[in-house]
This record gives sequence, structure tokens and C-alpha cells, in this order.
Amino acid sequence: MEKLKEEVYKANMLLPKYKLITFTWGNVSGIDRESGIMAIKPSGVEYDLLRPEDMVLVDVNTGKKVEGDLNPSSDTPTHVELYKAFPNIGGVVHTHSRWATVFSQSGRGIPALGTTHGDYFYGEIPCTRKMTPEEIGGAYEKETGTVIIETFKDKSPDDIPAVLVHSHGPFTWGTDPMNAVHNAVVLEELAFMAWHNLVLDPTIPPMQQELLDKHYLRKHGANAYYGQGK
Amino acid sequence: MEKLKEEVYKANMLLPKYKLITFTWGNVSGIDRESGIMAIKPSGVEYDLLRPEDMVLVDVNTGKKVEGDLNPSSDTPTHVELYKAFPNIGGVVHTHSRWATVFSQSGRGIPALGTTHGDYFYGEIPCTRKMTPEEIGGAYEKETGTVIIETFKDKSPDDIPAVLVHSHGPFTWGTDPMNAVHNAVVLEELAFMAWHNLVLDPTIPPMQQELLDKHYLRKHGANAYYGQGK
Amino acid sequence: MEKLKEEVYKANMLLPKYKLITFTWGNVSGIDRESGIMAIKPSGVEYDLLRPEDMVLVDVNTGKKVEGDLNPSSDTPTHVELYKAFPNIGGVVHTHSRWATVFSQSGRGIPALGTTHGDYFYGEIPCTRKMTPEEIGGAYEKETGTVIIETFKDKSPDDIPAVLVHSHGPFTWGTDPMNAVHNAVVLEELAFMAWHNLVLDPTIPPMQQELLDKHYLRKHGANAYYGQGK
Amino acid sequence: MEKLKEEVYKANMLLPKYKLITFTWGNVSGIDRESGIMAIKPSGVEYDLLRPEDMVLVDVNTGKKVEGDLNPSSDTPTHVELYKAFPNIGGVVHTHSRWATVFSQSGRGIPALGTTHGDYFYGEIPCTRKMTPEEIGGAYEKETGTVIIETFKDKSPDDIPAVLVHSHGPFTWGTDPMNAVHNAVVLEELAFMAWHNLVLDPTIPPMQQELLDKHYLRKHGANAYYGQGK
Repeated sequence: MEKLKEEVYKANMLLPKYKLITFTWGNVSGIDRESGIMAIKPSGVEYDLLRPEDMVLVDVNTGKKVEGDLNPSSDTPTHVELYKAFPNIGGVVHTHSRWATVFSQSGRGIPALGTTHGDYFYGEIPCTRKMTPEEIGGAYEKETGTVIIETFKDKSPDDIPAVLVHSHGPFTWGTDPMNAVHNAVVLEELAFMAWHNLVLDPTIPPMQQELLDKHYLRKHGANAYYGQGK
Repeated sequence: MEKLKEEVYKANMLLPKYKLITFTWGNVSGIDRESGIMAIKPSGVEYDLLRPEDMVLVDVNTGKKVEGDLNPSSDTPTHVELYKAFPNIGGVVHTHSRWATVFSQSGRGIPALGTTHGDYFYGEIPCTRKMTPEEIGGAYEKETGTVIIETFKDKSPDDIPAVLVHSHGPFTWGTDPMNAVHNAVVLEELAFMAWHNLVLDPTIPPMQQELLDKHYLRKHGANAYYGQGK
Repeated sequence: MEKLKEEVYKANMLLPKYKLITFTWGNVSGIDRESGIMAIKPSGVEYDLLRPEDMVLVDVNTGKKVEGDLNPSSDTPTHVELYKAFPNIGGVVHTHSRWATVFSQSGRGIPALGTTHGDYFYGEIPCTRKMTPEEIGGAYEKETGTVIIETFKDKSPDDIPAVLVHSHGPFTWGTDPMNAVHNAVVLEELAFMAWHNLVLDPTIPPMQQELLDKHYLRKHGANAYYGQGK
Repeated sequence: MEKLKEEVYKANMLLPKYKLITFTWGNVSGIDRESGIMAIKPSGVEYDLLRPEDMVLVDVNTGKKVEGDLNPSSDTPTHVELYKAFPNIGGVVHTHSRWATVFSQSGRGIPALGTTHGDYFYGEIPCTRKMTPEEIGGAYEKETGTVIIETFKDKSPDDIPAVLVHSHGPFTWGTDPMNAVHNAVVLEELAFMAWHNLVLDPTIPPMQQELLDKHYLRKHGANAYYGQGK
């Protein structure tokens, strides 16, 4: 558990390093799948003051805090829902990073326009539908998770490890907390480029499917050949 | 008073840190409500050379300097008007920060397009009307305050702690000088995102009222539950 | 002369500090009006390697180098023309700063859209006409100066201390080299904001003349009251 | 060979310095023309961990690794094709730099709009055609080189040392690895400015041919007079 808290702490500290957050607008969590315990950043604490021991432990099955003096991030119920629905993920990141949030606010997905996208995301990064007044007025943070999961009912969260929540901002995930942060950085870069392409060419089509296949599959799956092997 | 000057000095020094100003284009003030004395940055002094003891003390009731060797910011009469009209505020910031100033120059408010906005501002951040030739030719800096106050005649300055002065730039305020700077940083981020949304989608509607209510009220007021409580 | 070289050196070193240049794409000069000698950066030398003693001295009356081992900037004849035509200026800056250069490339002036502009420039910052094939094929760098001077035939270079050379980039000037660099920084900020205003509102009108008068004249001329007085 | 590896290492380390890359998204190679051996960055290694001795040596004639424990960059076959087809080049750079990649994703060349462009590139920087499904499904990285070479069938790679690969990103080259990186920095700056010009003025024409000739030829070729001579 100490190792998980340390790992989640370090991943949280990467958010200011990569300029993905302003003030406290973001959080990273990680999960130990064996015990079903997740560690997450406390709510509203400044990054400069954060320490590994401040990470709050939450039982994903009950959604209850099991250790920690501080309140967990108010987005905790969203993280919990994602861990329950997406069995292969080990870390979740939420930010209000500028470029991805612009797409969230416009309610638009980020189309796959080039190989930078295809190296990480196997198709358009989707935006959720708007939440209903009932969902907003109810268990809002939990329902935020539900609407994300609904968005992935015909997509693989392993192949598209990010989503834009309508009128809100991005969530990304990954095999572990660091990998989820890595995907958050890539997402921001893709959002930057896609915005500029859409303004230059409002009718720009997605990239060729063959090229998307080539780039995604040379880095992911059984036939990957990028990097130093495993 | 020394404490107020120190606090106002520190808040002023955050403006270059957060890249809200170029050269000397900005100022922060703070008020001691009991005595009605405000401390403000001197006019046209470089930030590198600024010291706590350079802050100028001004009596808000008379608008006159009561201590300090230097001239107070030329925007002092605007700050004075705001403190007189908005009884709950403890700090005021004026900058020419890039993105907010673009909205000022276009004479447009910043619409509430997402939860980042709703976490801090309870609705559109308004832009004032143009000032009249008489106002410009008269007590210009005081009239700048008057036109801001007029803009809030049917809005709460506590719930929308920022304004764009037409063809000029933003003023923000807050419970104290630091909080006013905090709001200036958020304003710049919101302006950045709203500009990009408006260019991508010129007819983008404001966010759902329910979502705005949810986010503003979970952080502000009697039923707030964000952060570590109080 | 050593003082002038030191001053010009320091002003040149501000260009990378303010991110106005990439590689060696810029130069600052200063003039000693009494002797008619100007100091200017050598051509194509990296900023990291530049030393005060590398500044080249040129006689403005003859346009010839009078001291220095290195070749002066290839833009020297443009600087010479400006010093001869604009008697009150003491420093000249040329850069390819991003935002101002975009306006140069579009062949458009930067309209006065707000008080940030009016605090420094008394009206639109003009763009020159295109140079003719004869001017380009002839004494090109000298003719660049000529076309700038032609652009100011009905404007005051003291009140509008900058120009955009068509398809090229900006020149600014000022009372001394530091002031010319100061104006180059302001120009870039104004170009940034004006570009964003023009994209948001292609038909945006200039600011009110009364407001432009107010802001320019409260900082410049006999009735100025901004700053700490003189 | 050690000198080549050191030089290629140093050139690679400039990519993060100039903010041309995110994570490991780029690579630089250099060639020793006498032996036909090129040195290139290993595949997928983080820049923070890179050492000169990690550079991989590849025989350009066979395309095979001749020294090194690590796999060479997956883009190695593209570099090999460029060295074989363009006899005067000594270094090649590939990045996914933001602004140039936007043009790649839009499938558009970067028009020559001003003298900054003309100082380095003698005309529009072209974008390749889309690759065919056969090329993508075959020896993809080698075919990427082939389509670049095809793009230059009626252009000089010495006068236009950069290309945009459709839906992918830029390649630049130069007389040596450092010069190729230099061109990658310039390319990014040109892409930044051209994007902003095209959005402001979608029908903007290229700059005058005479001005392009003047600027390119005053820095390149027999009659160059820019800089400190040779």
C-alpha cells in the first residue's frame, strides 16, 4: 500500500510538471487489483504541499475511505466506477487541461488525424453525451463515471484510453498511474493539433484507416515492433 | 498596516509569476475594512524593484494618500470605487492579461461553457459598455469604477468576481488580495478556453444551468462539499 | 563610445530574454547623435557568444564602418536610413518576432483596439507597401529604410514607434536602445491580441478616438500624469 | 565513428531543448559519407537516459545495424532512403513538432509568405501525397522515404531541406546533424506563422518571387553576403 501511495503521489506530481493543471484542478489515482484498494489525491490540497502519506486509500468495492486523514478527491466516485467497469486499467487521471477541455466544452470528440494519434489511440477520442438534470442532481460524481462507461459500450477502453466529459474535461487511464499520466500528456498534444486542423479545414476527414492500423498495431498487441522489445 | 502592505506586496509579485503582466501593466490592492485604508502598488514601478514598504496607503473614504513616498497606481480611483460599492471584497486586481484583454477589446463577455468556469464564476463574466466621451474626458479612472458598478447592478460581485472593461482589460476581486489574484489566474484560463471554443463553434451555447448550479454550489455557500471542509 | 557599445550590447541581449528572436534573427543599434556614430550588432553571430566589444561602429553620415573586426548586421543600411530621417530616435530594433511578423506577412497594420495599444502607440501601427522589383534588386537594405520612411510621410515616428515591413517583419525604435526594445516587446503583445480579435471579429472597429487620446496623452507629452513624474 | 556518435547524440539532445518533441517522438541521424555508416538514436529510449554510446550504427548500403546493443529508431529505413537519394545531406531529423505536424495532418505544404521563410527555404515546403494501402502494408518505413523522394523529383532537397509527410509529421535534413536540427527549428517557426496567416487570410498569396530570390540568395550560394563570410 505504501508503494501504491508513493506511485500515485509521484504520478500526481507530474501533472504540474507537464503543465496539465492550474492550482488543484486535477487528480490521479492508482489501484491494487488484488485487494481492490485504490489510492487517490486528497481534495483541494495544493500540489506544493502534497506528500505521499496524504494519498487517501479507498475500497473500490464499497467506495468508502479505508485510510487517510484527509477527504479524498471529490471525483473519487468517478474513479471508482471506471475501475469497476474497465478491468484492465491500473491508473486514472482527471485534469482540466486546456486543449482537451476546449473539446469537452464544445462537446466534440478528437478525430484521429495523424500518426501521433494512431501511435496511442485506436480511433477518435469520444466525448460523452450531456448529463441529464437527474444525473447532475443525483449522485453526480458517480453518474459521471456511468456516462463515461456508456460512451465506451461499443469501444475498447484499452485501445482508446481517454474520454472527454461533456462541458467538463478529460479523463484518461492506463495500465498504471504513470501510464495514465502519459496518456493525459499525449491527449493534450493531440487536442492541440486537432483544434488547429479543424480551424484550418473544418471538413478535414479522419486519417486513412490503413495508416491508423499500421501505427497503432506496430506499437500495441502481438505484432508490435516499436521500441526495445520486451 | 505593515501586514496589509506585506500581503499586498506578495499578491503583486504573483502577477509576474503567473505571467499575467508585461512590464508594469497591472496592480493589486488590499483593504483593511475596519480603518477603511487600502494598500496599493505604486504607479509605474518595475516589479523587480518593488519592496513591501513601497506600497502606498490610501483612505478609501477620501481617496487621498495617507502614507507613502511614491504616487499610488493611476488606477487607484477605480479600486476605491469598487471597495465602496462591493462591501464583501478585500482585494482587487487589474491586469492587461492577454486572453481576458482580447475579450475586453472585442467588448464581449466570457460565457460559462464548462465546469472550470462554474467552479469559480456563477455565470457569464460580463463586459462593461463603452465609456462615454464625457466619462473619458472627466474623472476617467473613477468613472471606470462607476461603469463596472453599473455592470453589476443586477449581478452579485461575490458570485462573479471579475469584469472586463470595454477596450481596456480585466479587473478581478476576492475576499483578500491573494484570492483576487487567484481569480485573475482562473479568468485568464477561462478566457483562453472560451476564445478557442468560440472560434471553433461561433454559435456555441452556454453550459446547462443545472451543471453550472451543481459546480458553483458544491464549492460555494452553505452546502459546499469540495476540499477539506472548514 | 564604449558606453554606447555596452548599452547596445545589453539591449541586444534582451531580445532572447523576451523571446523576440530565434537564433540570430534580430539586431539592435543605438546612436550617439553628437558624433553621428551608431553601434550595431555584428551579422550572424550567435547571442550566446556575443560580447560588448563585438558591437560594430558605423558612421551614419557615410554608412561606413569606423571600428570593429566583424561585419555589421546586414540590416545596417536600414538602421542608417531611419536615424537620418527620424531625428528624435536613439535606438532601433529589428526582429522576426512571431506575432508582428504574421501581420507583416499578411501586409496588414495592427489596429488600435484597446488601451494597451493606446498607452504606447498613438494609432494603428502601419505596414509598408510591397517593395518594387527595382528596390529589391537594387540597394535592398537601404530601400527597406526608404519604404519605411515613406510609410511615415503623414505620421509621427515619435508617436508610433514601430512599423511592419511587408512580407518581412517589424522594426521598432525609441529614445534609446532599451526603449526601442521595450517597444518591440509591446508590439509583440499588441500583435498577439489584435490577431485574436480579428479572428474572433473580422470587422472589429478601432477603439474610440477619445479613449486612445486619453491613454496616450496621460503617459506622453506635457500633461502626462502616469508613473512617478520626472 | 565515436565523433559521429557524439555529434548525433548532441543533435538529438537539442530536440527537447528546442521543444520539438514530446517523450521520445523524434530522432536525429548523421552520416559518414566515406564509409557509408550512419549513426541514429535507438528506438523508444527516453531522452533523459540517452548516452552517446547508445547511438546505433547502420550501414546505409545494406540498411543493417553494424554496431550497438539497442534497436535503431523504427524510422531508420526512412533515413537510409534519404541518404541514398540526396547525396549532399549529412544529417536527418524527424519529429512530430506541433505546428509542422498540423500542416502534415492537413496534407498542405507551407507556402513561402515572408523573408524568414526565404532566408532558409527556396520556395514552398511540400507535403507528400498520401501513401497507398500497399505502401503502408509493405515496407512502410522504407516507403515513407520513397514517397518523400518522389515529392522532390522536381525540387532540390538542398534548397528546400524539409518535407511534411502526409498525416504524419516533418522530416528535415542538412549538411550535418546540427544543421538538420537548425532547419527543424526554423520549420516549426515558419509553420507557426503560416498557420496564423492562413487563418487570418485564407487566400493569402505567396510572397513576391523577387523577394524570395533576394533573401535566399543573399544567404546561400556564390553571391551570399550575410554573416561573417567564410
